[in-house]
Amino acid sequence: MAKAAVLVSEGVVETREVPIFEPEAGGALVRIELGGVCGTDLHMIHRLAYEYPLPIILGHEGIGRIEKLGAGMDRDHAGEPIKVGDRVYWSPMVACNQCYTCTILESSPCEKAAHFAEADKPSWCSHADYGWLPRGMPFFKVPEGASLDAIIALGCALPTAVGSIDVAGGIKFGETVVVQGAGPVGLAATLVANVSGARRIIVIDNNKIRLERARLIGATDTLSLEELTPEERKNAVMDACGASGPDLVVEAAGHLSAFPEGVALGGQAGRYCVAGLWGAAGEVSFEPRQLVLKNFSVRGSMAPRAKHYYRALHLAVDMADKVPLANLITHRFGLNQAADAYAAVTGGEAVKVIFDMSIS
Amino acid sequence: MAKAAVLVSEGVVETREVPIFEPEAGGALVRIELGGVCGTDLHMIHRLAYEYPLPIILGHEGIGRIEKLGAGMDRDHAGEPIKVGDRVYWSPMVACNQCYTCTILESSPCEKAAHFAEADKPSWCSHADYGWLPRGMPFFKVPEGASLDAIIALGCALPTAVGSIDVAGGIKFGETVVVQGAGPVGLAATLVANVSGARRIIVIDNNKIRLERARLIGATDTLSLEELTPEERKNAVMDACGASGPDLVVEAAGHLSAFPEGVALGGQAGRYCVAGLWGAAGEVSFEPRQLVLKNFSVRGSMAPRAKHYYRALHLAVDMADKVPLANLITHRFGLNQAADAYAAVTGGEAVKVIFDMSIS
Amino acid sequence: MAKAAVLVSEGVVETREVPIFEPEAGGALVRIELGGVCGTDLHMIHRLAYEYPLPIILGHEGIGRIEKLGAGMDRDHAGEPIKVGDRVYWSPMVACNQCYTCTILESSPCEKAAHFAEADKPSWCSHADYGWLPRGMPFFKVPEGASLDAIIALGCALPTAVGSIDVAGGIKFGETVVVQGAGPVGLAATLVANVSGARRIIVIDNNKIRLERARLIGATDTLSLEELTPEERKNAVMDACGASGPDLVVEAAGHLSAFPEGVALGGQAGRYCVAGLWGAAGEVSFEPRQLVLKNFSVRGSMAPRAKHYYRALHLAVDMADKVPLANLITHRFGLNQAADAYAAVTGGEAVKVIFDMSIS
Amino acid sequence: MAKAAVLVSEGVVETREVPIFEPEAGGALVRIELGGVCGTDLHMIHRLAYEYPLPIILGHEGIGRIEKLGAGMDRDHAGEPIKVGDRVYWSPMVACNQCYTCTILESSPCEKAAHFAEADKPSWCSHADYGWLPRGMPFFKVPEGASLDAIIALGCALPTAVGSIDVAGGIKFGETVVVQGAGPVGLAATLVANVSGARRIIVIDNNKIRLERARLIGATDTLSLEELTPEERKNAVMDACGASGPDLVVEAAGHLSAFPEGVALGGQAGRYCVAGLWGAAGEVSFEPRQLVLKNFSVRGSMAPRAKHYYRALHLAVDMADKVPLANLITHRFGLNQAADAYAAVTGGEAVKVIFDMSIS
Repeated sequence: MAKAAVLVSEGVVETREVPIFEPEAGGALVRIELGGVCGTDLHMIHRLAYEYPLPIILGHEGIGRIEKLGAGMDRDHAGEPIKVGDRVYWSPMVACNQCYTCTILESSPCEKAAHFAEADKPSWCSHADYGWLPRGMPFFKVPEGASLDAIIALGCALPTAVGSIDVAGGIKFGETVVVQGAGPVGLAATLVANVSGARRIIVIDNNKIRLERARLIGATDTLSLEELTPEERKNAVMDACGASGPDLVVEAAGHLSAFPEGVALGGQAGRYCVAGLWGAAGEVSFEPRQLVLKNFSVRGSMAPRAKHYYRALHLAVDMADKVPLANLITHRFGLNQAADAYAAVTGGEAVKVIFDMSIS
Repeated sequence: MAKAAVLVSEGVVETREVPIFEPEAGGALVRIELGGVCGTDLHMIHRLAYEYPLPIILGHEGIGRIEKLGAGMDRDHAGEPIKVGDRVYWSPMVACNQCYTCTILESSPCEKAAHFAEADKPSWCSHADYGWLPRGMPFFKVPEGASLDAIIALGCALPTAVGSIDVAGGIKFGETVVVQGAGPVGLAATLVANVSGARRIIVIDNNKIRLERARLIGATDTLSLEELTPEERKNAVMDACGASGPDLVVEAAGHLSAFPEGVALGGQAGRYCVAGLWGAAGEVSFEPRQLVLKNFSVRGSMAPRAKHYYRALHLAVDMADKVPLANLITHRFGLNQAADAYAAVTGGEAVKVIFDMSIS
Repeated sequence: MAKAAVLVSEGVVETREVPIFEPEAGGALVRIELGGVCGTDLHMIHRLAYEYPLPIILGHEGIGRIEKLGAGMDRDHAGEPIKVGDRVYWSPMVACNQCYTCTILESSPCEKAAHFAEADKPSWCSHADYGWLPRGMPFFKVPEGASLDAIIALGCALPTAVGSIDVAGGIKFGETVVVQGAGPVGLAATLVANVSGARRIIVIDNNKIRLERARLIGATDTLSLEELTPEERKNAVMDACGASGPDLVVEAAGHLSAFPEGVALGGQAGRYCVAGLWGAAGEVSFEPRQLVLKNFSVRGSMAPRAKHYYRALHLAVDMADKVPLANLITHRFGLNQAADAYAAVTGGEAVKVIFDMSIS
Repeated sequence: MAKAAVLVSEGVVETREVPIFEPEAGGALVRIELGGVCGTDLHMIHRLAYEYPLPIILGHEGIGRIEKLGAGMDRDHAGEPIKVGDRVYWSPMVACNQCYTCTILESSPCEKAAHFAEADKPSWCSHADYGWLPRGMPFFKVPEGASLDAIIALGCALPTAVGSIDVAGGIKFGETVVVQGAGPVGLAATLVANVSGARRIIVIDNNKIRLERARLIGATDTLSLEELTPEERKNAVMDACGASGPDLVVEAAGHLSAFPEGVALGGQAGRYCVAGLWGAAGEVSFEPRQLVLKNFSVRGSMAPRAKHYYRALHLAVDMADKVPLANLITHRFGLNQAADAYAAVTGGEAVKVIFDMSIS
């Protein structure tokens, strides 16, 4: 039997034993080593996101070792030879490659994206010591010697930022970038801007601890949402970027108010990558003529593609010795302390909370 | 002396005599044959747009013959040999090629874009029988035998639509396109979608006459803003384009309410080209998470570039014998009937009003 | 039992009975109505292309009706509901979605692309009255009332041209295009240029019958490879396109000599789409500095993606009443005349040869 | 009078006094501090490149202080306020903004690009202590405190590499890059790959000193053209980049043999940026089908645009404290040692030779 953090009813998580299943053809069974806790897990605990049955295992960020490979599997999803014992990192999204979005738009999310399964069925969820990756779930070999902490430290926020910024046109060296929000997606966007050679990276948040972390991974400037008025923030951005304004604004705040401010901060012929507002239901007022007067582009983005998980994995591995990525992990729990782990996320002092299956 | 339609004070237009000037080096003097009347002229008459001195000559859409070329000029701005007597079509915008927007962003509008000059100074304005094109104002030779009416029929709306759709990623053959608004910009977007091989072109407006014209130049479907509810319009668009929605929505309505409807109509991984809202001051409420959930792109656009005028000219010339472009001209006046001309635009029955300098 | 045109040994084709297989989960069994004969079939008969076992069924271009659907299949690969009796058109390439090319490059061809199976095994090949489409082989519903002849008339050359021109940046309305070669790929490129609004479409070949067909489907100019010297061809292209040269050259000739001529014909800041040279082994000499002096782009392309098959299908359907696509079919045979069918292709008078399973 | 290095006849350079001219409207007079020597200067001395009159001043890479501004000039070409005494860096190319290439293609080089003027006429050339920048010649303010040596160290090779890689699609973080040639353009491409976050940067040359410099500014691997066979180089590239090959190859070698090797080294769906072959007259043999089989893109590029000079300037300024850019300068001469300066370039031990006008 495996052990897992199981959501049994709204707000109630228990550590339970769950069955281990043989991998299907094209799939794999993974012995999980680290599992990241994401804000979405909290949303799910409080039943604010998605529809799903109960009980279910939580967690969609994981690293582990191949325990068993399904029939026909001798390579990972980047074509690298793979064998039992190798470490892998995976994307929790299976594309059907057969719906209009997958095949004709070559976009995501897949219209038939796999849903969460009950806890007593095969599950790829990562807050458990075994994960069952179905056929078609992309997993990638972790390079030898890589820092696992660095890879898990930004969790799914890293492929999210990599994917969103990619579809929003990427970042050219020398560009100026504003990041709204210094949560995991904002920090990941900061890292992407850093590695891409952005000349100025201005991060806005109200949490000083997070802004400090942002500086450690590449922010050149940080602006306090509390201490500065919108006008002062606008002026600070203009001072840093020049009168034409920033080349790119990345929304990673998840608050409706971020949208009109993002448009206002945006530069002439600038781009706005909206990555955080998927969960922010509701409307907000803004002035659309600004889009026209500034020749402005806005790109919403969700559901990074498999290639973005691959690029995120290698980005974390490559940057691990240049910036203190692993230090973003502030809390580490064993599966037996599941409730504590989820509570830590909401505590406000956490940057990243993870499950470490080596903690008993 | 030349004759010109001159705005002398708010709401008051007179036909006056104005001086003719020698062309400057790099410029040209044009004997104007046709001058289109644009909604912006009306805005200017009522002092709703731009700041400018009085009195000024109106009009920014024109075709005429070269009367005299400035020093050094033996080619048009596409490198074609040009001589006195050749017909030309021009863009009313001079780029300084020296500001951040011109040089570094390679975008428009130029930060130092030329302003309107008083009526007794050299003026490139087109509601006159002579136009003085300054150095750097792009003009292009009109091919021999081209229909002048076809070129002027959509006025500056044609380069606007050509440029906006271009920067919004263009239209691939087989794509599905929704056009909000069947005024000149919407009709021009319809023509661009037609020539680009769009499979479905759905035009929305409340004016039946305009919707009928839209069909003549390529709309495959028209939807009445009055007769259909937003939900019915959404359903009609989905029926025409498939469940994934249209590939491109073009906003050419100029009303704030168009923005949230455009986002709602937009398809999965779709694009939204916002071309008409430059003049619509004020805010509007919408749900930004839709941008994220649909992986949606929005591109505001104004100020087409010189190349878009060139492409628009040739588009009109090439399409003149395939669709009844010239028929969009519903009213034609001489300079002596200037007040009547501007009144016709607001009359509601006009599609396009032009000055024809051959009418005395 | 099904009937099929089977290659039994080099140069020897027989019509044989072969088994019919149940569809696998995710696959489909198709009762084939039309099967196109492609030059590649001839290459295979003479064992000039690919490695494969014998005996095998020939043919990779087909249209037919769903005879039986595999488990889990109720939609085609564009998400359209599908049922027994519906007509479908398919791509003969299955992507593994698990190799580096599929997942990380999002390109093609898949590194594990399915190979040809022996004639007594399940086969998707189209020179048979039944085709067995494996799981993951993209098929698309043919719209009701569509002309099947129009869809098959350009065979796999249509998705090839659609895909190649797409990855080479597409064609904007008003652009000038040169097509080298008026075989199926060249004719398909001509059709794509036509629907995309190209202003001039200049097709070069030495076969007058083919050049005539090219005119019927959109060529504005045709140039004889035999009658004109390279310099005369260059001059003719410049006359048609202007001194800056064509925006796009499409290589669909399949001869090495096409490459240096294509580079020479290419325009300033122009693009060169190389689609036909996949089979032309060997080297050719050219002057690479021309690439630099002209700021020129060259894009090689093979293996269109599933979306290009979808777009090609709809392109043929939409253009069927605008250009005489179906007339490109010059020869039509039943399966019992297989040897005649392949002989007709090499006869030189054929534009398109097809198998029509209704001919007994 | 100014002092200048003047080419008086083939192979003969003299330091001469030349007149100083007042700046024209829109232009500037610059007191030059540093002037880089480029391989093109050597070509010109031996009359291997361009057509031009004699005598002429040499040099097209310069930095200096504004001595006098022409009428109407109070900003540089990026819109920054500029005044007498400010340091500037300039592009030696004036665009007419009126030819087909400038206006319609928005490409370069301008068809009317300014030519070299005789030494007794106003000249923007940089091997002199005064430079006369004509109207429209883009110059940019050098940030306060910037290292002038770092800016001039790669000379015009830096904007060349910035521009070429830009038009070839840029470099995304995590990509793998091969650079053919470690001369100034190759070193500049290495720097661009470094700042852009390339994961592997493999530089190929036969000069060990240059390869060592390449490592200092970002190469992760260097391959000797002499010591390794083509097959060994191919294997080394594959080892570093994975079986799919590099994402980008940059040709900065200037030898015809580089082209076929670059195509052979290129990866699946890879890009090839050809920047160095503009001067390599003559043909070379290669296999074009490789372009097709690899879905490969080739982009030739010359004549960077004004924005690339701006980006190059800021790149050098920003990287000056991260990599030892200024150390690339191996030789420094006063104008009075002009012949020695040009001789040093051909000596083979030089990486970069400059004129320093403070040396008397």
